[in-house]
Amino acid sequence: MHHTAEHDERLDPGDAARDRPIFEGQIRRLLPTSGHLMARRLRDLLRAELRSGAFGGGRLPGESELMARHRASRDVVRAALDLLRRDGLIERRRGLGTLPIREEYIVAGAPPPAGRSLEAHLALGRIAPRLLHWAWIPAPPVIAARLSDVAVGEDCLCIEYVLLLDDRPLAVFTNYLRAPEAGGVDQAVFRDDFYSLLHTGGIDIAGCDVGVQAARADDCAAALLHVLPGEPVLLVEQTIRDGTGAAIDYALGTCRGELQLEIGGIPRIDMTAALPR
Amino acid sequence: MHHTAEHDERLDPGDAARDRPIFEGQIRRLLPTSGHLMARRLRDLLRAELRSGAFGGGRLPGESELMARHRASRDVVRAALDLLRRDGLIERRRGLGTLPIREEYIVAGAPPPAGRSLEAHLALGRIAPRLLHWAWIPAPPVIAARLSDVAVGEDCLCIEYVLLLDDRPLAVFTNYLRAPEAGGVDQAVFRDDFYSLLHTGGIDIAGCDVGVQAARADDCAAALLHVLPGEPVLLVEQTIRDGTGAAIDYALGTCRGELQLEIGGIPRIDMTAALPR
Repeated sequence: MHHTAEHDERLDPGDAARDRPIFEGQIRRLLPTSGHLMARRLRDLLRAELRSGAFGGGRLPGESELMARHRASRDVVRAALDLLRRDGLIERRRGLGTLPIREEYIVAGAPPPAGRSLEAHLALGRIAPRLLHWAWIPAPPVIAARLSDVAVGEDCLCIEYVLLLDDRPLAVFTNYLRAPEAGGVDQAVFRDDFYSLLHTGGIDIAGCDVGVQAARADDCAAALLHVLPGEPVLLVEQTIRDGTGAAIDYALGTCRGELQLEIGGIPRIDMTAALPR
Repeated sequence: MHHTAEHDERLDPGDAARDRPIFEGQIRRLLPTSGHLMARRLRDLLRAELRSGAFGGGRLPGESELMARHRASRDVVRAALDLLRRDGLIERRRGLGTLPIREEYIVAGAPPPAGRSLEAHLALGRIAPRLLHWAWIPAPPVIAARLSDVAVGEDCLCIEYVLLLDDRPLAVFTNYLRAPEAGGVDQAVFRDDFYSLLHTGGIDIAGCDVGVQAARADDCAAALLHVLPGEPVLLVEQTIRDGTGAAIDYALGTCRGELQLEIGGIPRIDMTAALPR
């Protein structure tokens, strides 16, 4: 059963709008046309290609080649390239063509294998922390609720650092580590990444839970990450678990927009494990 | 080995800056002070609490209670609340106190159990698609590279829709579905969510890979999602796999900033499965 019909993509403004012709022009202006949607789809595909390094870091194919590859009109190709330019991802240079101008970084969301540094695992460049804060604090209720077997007011170790890639700030993370595990880590050996720090403390990690959200960089995050205040950043919430499933560390991170967090092999939720409602 | 010493959090401007006193003021202005970092840490914890509904949708605790809970000074508490206000998350109302003003949605990144709708699984409200585009297209190189056993130019089905939650747009997704699977799906039954659509086509899903990044909403996405152009959005790249591990669908999505994508139970990367370098 093949559907080959092309939809009319201009959105239906709905009954309410039809009943109120006074608003029609306003609504029509706000609704994307078929051409807008086509340009956006092509932009998204080109962005995916840019991220995967399909153009080998070199210039993008010319307009005619993009038209042929994507069976798109010249107008749509130009509009898509214009969107990429406005996203700050490409630039047109006289005599050189259209070039990618932003380096993007694909970072695995899963912890690297035990004993292997994040630097060796990602192979993106030299990874090092810039320590901002290392202090024992009494766990506030929100931290006690997220760590296993930690009561409100019980000591945990707060470790905050900027993650540097080749000396460029990529993210800032604040970790809250339970006392049993925190007792084994040493600030003096925090030279690589947080997972490696845990490994030096003899802490066995089995995996993590991650939550992600987009937000604007506040002034402080902007200064730490060398971006402008208000630029989009990726907020990351991470719970690190040991082999027994206990939450031993809770982290809140803010990542630059250039970073794509990748999580592979996510299994479909198991019906038998799902709680009945 | 407990470390109880509190670091001086004012960042060290480094040797270069010390050698060039002319830049010192400028650099000092850019580097967050200890107070800024404390306020930011508290703001991040309050944001996590807001997201998890710890305040029951009601008002936030008063300044004194926050000071006690987090062992923070009044200045730090006020600065943290001010950051939350600037993030558009809370508002102070005379006589009512400080209230959350933004609804946030936690959405699972893993596909729901087979045959269970996303609506039933998330239990956030009525979930429905608003179809924008449903058309067969010859696969461009970028899509052929991401789907299993699809050659460039081979037909695949492009399905684009806005994901509505109680009629409010939450995300826009463009899917590229392989022909063998696309042959089984019917536009007329796309009434719930994309996973349910695949299920009606008898397509067995085992799991997915996800990549996420923060970006600014373009004009078109802004109109579709009812946000202002430039607002932060979460870009989601998803590859859906069947039981054999074959990539049957590739999707590019743009989600509102209110949406937190949650992925639990991510295992540490297996050393034996990692490719040797």
